Amino acid sequence: MKTIKIVIAGPRGRMGSEAVKLVQKKDKYELVAVVDHKNDGGNLSDFKGFEGIDVPVYSDIEKCFKNEDCDVLIDLTTPEVGMYHTKTALTYGVRPVVGTTGFTKENLQELEDLCHETNLGAIIAPNFAVGAVLMMKFSQMAAKYFNDVEIIEMHHDQKLDAPSGTAVKTAEMIRDVRESKQQGHPNEKETLAGARGADFDGMHIHSVRLPGLIAHQQVMFGSSGQTLQIRHDSYNRESFMSGVALAVDTVVKIDTLVYGLENIIE
Amino acid sequence: MKTIKIVIAGPRGRMGSEAVKLVQKKDKYELVAVVDHKNDGGNLSDFKGFEGIDVPVYSDIEKCFKNEDCDVLIDLTTPEVGMYHTKTALTYGVRPVVGTTGFTKENLQELEDLCHETNLGAIIAPNFAVGAVLMMKFSQMAAKYFNDVEIIEMHHDQKLDAPSGTAVKTAEMIRDVRESKQQGHPNEKETLAGARGADFDGMHIHSVRLPGLIAHQQVMFGSSGQTLQIRHDSYNRESFMSGVALAVDTVVKIDTLVYGLENIIE
Amino acid sequence: MKTIKIVIAGPRGRMGSEAVKLVQKKDKYELVAVVDHKNDGGNLSDFKGFEGIDVPVYSDIEKCFKNEDCDVLIDLTTPEVGMYHTKTALTYGVRPVVGTTGFTKENLQELEDLCHETNLGAIIAPNFAVGAVLMMKFSQMAAKYFNDVEIIEMHHDQKLDAPSGTAVKTAEMIRDVRESKQQGHPNEKETLAGARGADFDGMHIHSVRLPGLIAHQQVMFGSSGQTLQIRHDSYNRESFMSGVALAVDTVVKIDTLVYGLENIIE
Amino acid sequence: MKTIKIVIAGPRGRMGSEAVKLVQKKDKYELVAVVDHKNDGGNLSDFKGFEGIDVPVYSDIEKCFKNEDCDVLIDLTTPEVGMYHTKTALTYGVRPVVGTTGFTKENLQELEDLCHETNLGAIIAPNFAVGAVLMMKFSQMAAKYFNDVEIIEMHHDQKLDAPSGTAVKTAEMIRDVRESKQQGHPNEKETLAGARGADFDGMHIHSVRLPGLIAHQQVMFGSSGQTLQIRHDSYNRESFMSGVALAVDTVVKIDTLVYGLENIIE
Repeated sequence: MKTIKIVIAGPRGRMGSEAVKLVQKKDKYELVAVVDHKNDGGNLSDFKGFEGIDVPVYSDIEKCFKNEDCDVLIDLTTPEVGMYHTKTALTYGVRPVVGTTGFTKENLQELEDLCHETNLGAIIAPNFAVGAVLMMKFSQMAAKYFNDVEIIEMHHDQKLDAPSGTAVKTAEMIRDVRESKQQGHPNEKETLAGARGADFDGMHIHSVRLPGLIAHQQVMFGSSGQTLQIRHDSYNRESFMSGVALAVDTVVKIDTLVYGLENIIE
Repeated sequence: MKTIKIVIAGPRGRMGSEAVKLVQKKDKYELVAVVDHKNDGGNLSDFKGFEGIDVPVYSDIEKCFKNEDCDVLIDLTTPEVGMYHTKTALTYGVRPVVGTTGFTKENLQELEDLCHETNLGAIIAPNFAVGAVLMMKFSQMAAKYFNDVEIIEMHHDQKLDAPSGTAVKTAEMIRDVRESKQQGHPNEKETLAGARGADFDGMHIHSVRLPGLIAHQQVMFGSSGQTLQIRHDSYNRESFMSGVALAVDTVVKIDTLVYGLENIIE
Repeated sequence: MKTIKIVIAGPRGRMGSEAVKLVQKKDKYELVAVVDHKNDGGNLSDFKGFEGIDVPVYSDIEKCFKNEDCDVLIDLTTPEVGMYHTKTALTYGVRPVVGTTGFTKENLQELEDLCHETNLGAIIAPNFAVGAVLMMKFSQMAAKYFNDVEIIEMHHDQKLDAPSGTAVKTAEMIRDVRESKQQGHPNEKETLAGARGADFDGMHIHSVRLPGLIAHQQVMFGSSGQTLQIRHDSYNRESFMSGVALAVDTVVKIDTLVYGLENIIE
Repeated sequence: MKTIKIVIAGPRGRMGSEAVKLVQKKDKYELVAVVDHKNDGGNLSDFKGFEGIDVPVYSDIEKCFKNEDCDVLIDLTTPEVGMYHTKTALTYGVRPVVGTTGFTKENLQELEDLCHETNLGAIIAPNFAVGAVLMMKFSQMAAKYFNDVEIIEMHHDQKLDAPSGTAVKTAEMIRDVRESKQQGHPNEKETLAGARGADFDGMHIHSVRLPGLIAHQQVMFGSSGQTLQIRHDSYNRESFMSGVALAVDTVVKIDTLVYGLENIIE
């Protein structure tokens, strides 16, 4: 197998540092450079926590692509620079795998056109946790056969928003395929307000918050005589790395823009 | 072991018919008569579904106790006649095990005095499912060591009220022992109303309703680095019978009134 | 929507009687006759439990198809007569939905050829529980992305065989797609024999047996930092009926043999 | 509330460093010194990771107790020195809270006598995770009412032994109270060896090992029509600290030896 040559943008972030570890660990990957707004012209090994990883640091991504021979850019920066990085990569014949969110419809159209022109693949994934992506995909599939569904998402009690983004995304994916239905008994009554959770297109979402919990979601389907449940537990950031690897391995084989890991999972 | 002689009041109800089966099944129990407003002077075997069970039917409970030698009355009737049955039993030297709810504080005081006078035990249990009673008892015990708790109760979608009576009872038992606490992040925000469930003294209760489900409750405790969960699943009415048997076996050994199965469980 | 005219073979069996209920309940279905080795020439309403359902009974399936205009045969008999029924149905232009198992490879080939000749669809399904079929299908899909998986199946303690047929079928479907792997630590050691469960191609299967349980299966996938679980709970035989309905609705639109509900689920 | 003055032995171990954090965090605790075989006469702040925590280090525990005024010793060292530390503490009027395991019966007798003589409390706890201790205690309580139980313990796939120590301890505590019973159907048959798990006094234990998992145990009880489950999930070492705090708060009020946190939980 040919080695895949990789540049990582944002190597010192929480996701970025995991990505550096991932690329170091797998024989088929080779880290050729990193892009960081600090330490231009220096070496990654100069940064605390990256001792011994001898690759050049570029602050200017164009200069990086001019100097280094590489196949894939893993971009884990911010939406602001992510778009610029992604376009630049395609221009220089480098396939981008992008973990930043917040791209607009216009951004995505522009990138799709650029992929078409350059005949290069690109993958943009708001969520790299393969387990979470499968949970959402399976939920959507099951919703074709089960009209009734409730979502229970459970997180640590430092989380501010309820429900979680993943729960809402799951509910949206279900809504897209199922016949709309107001669930529960038509005459059901809350004797304590909120007991039945949030209503989303007639399905219900419940948000549990407890110290000790990390990030968990359970999607429950029910029909006469049976229930089907799909559950994902995320314990730490390492869980994202199998998704990054999957995206890297896929992007080198495709020549279009893919948005969302669920679209490269069969 | 001496046989326990039993009279059942309300033998044709849903709980009553299970109680008849229970008494038939166990060698140490003997069914001596039933009390029913129908078929006075007839035989239980006259009723459909009770073929072959040869015991007399009385509509008048006093007449029953005058004619029959018995140790325990299992009363599974209504609150209206339950109080009269219970008092009559104690008067005739019969220990009552009562599954009807709705007794007032005054009723209970009167029965307690009567137990004291007659030196007889009596057990009144709103819930005979031993598993549910243990779930509530364990939850109360755990709440002394875990400040943070959420309750998820799950029932079929024909249930009208949310949250369930068991969930509210559990929350009350927890409230009685734990320091009151408003759980979750102080700045948490529902982007969809109801997501965080019902608030009960700062803890949260979530009610899931789906076809297929029967009657389930999960009590979740969390603290730094760990969670503890207690869950009860009730699949059918048979689950109540182990509690009835426990009450019968206990009532013959005690000489006071006990309210709630949790008070005979160690 | 055109009504689908249905004949049911084996109406008095456990599955058959549920199928009669199903066909009665849905407006788009019409029960035109039943096939039963008893009461030939009589009426279904003569049988206990079927009072008021006025359809003719045939013991000879050929005679049934000659006399009655029908679209679909639901066959819930035995392997012995199932094959004969299925072939006869196709010969008479009736599409079969068959719940009997035990067909040989040769049987299936013969039926496939007959479907081809007659240009008619036929569906043979060893398992009609849509939830169970989805659980197996999702497990197979997930196994492409998660190398490590354990299966926990839980049944009432009257079940004789361990592991369950569904657990073995799930494991086979996973084995067909994943790279074979001996799971667990290479040096792991059972201090009590059997603790690690049954080994199937390097994955582990655990069989729990407890009174109270009905039929449950949980498939657990794990990778660094995350787990993904798929769980099916079957509470009663009604759960099969959504699968029967799905098969009936599908068989009228297809012109080939389909073996296994998983192959009509998208 | 009076401050509790604390000495920690073994401050640099995995448990010890968490204990230092705990004592720092709670206002009612004051760390007066640490015992460590390194850096005698120095300061805890000299050690990496303890910057800013200004307390003296003693290698000689007797010297420590002579120089420092303290109420409680938290000992998180090894069995070899743990016994000596515990005895010395009691001799100097300091109450020990000990997390080391491996004390012999004779050791415990000696310490019990010493507590009696000195009129001081001491707590020795092989497991400080309050949730795990509650799970075991509740399991023992439930076993009086449910004869049938299976234990499923789930850990990461780097664990060597199966079943886990906690699973075996739980099974032992259940065995101590329940009537021995060979569970499952008398004629049950494993078609794949090991499917029914390990047999312990007739109950079954199942060990799941998967990457991603941390440390989880589920105890399942079943009886006719119902199941009761108790589950503990341990995500990280912080979970032990609530148990250490409970032990410290308790030891200052008692004057006997207590072995096992379950004996101070009501």
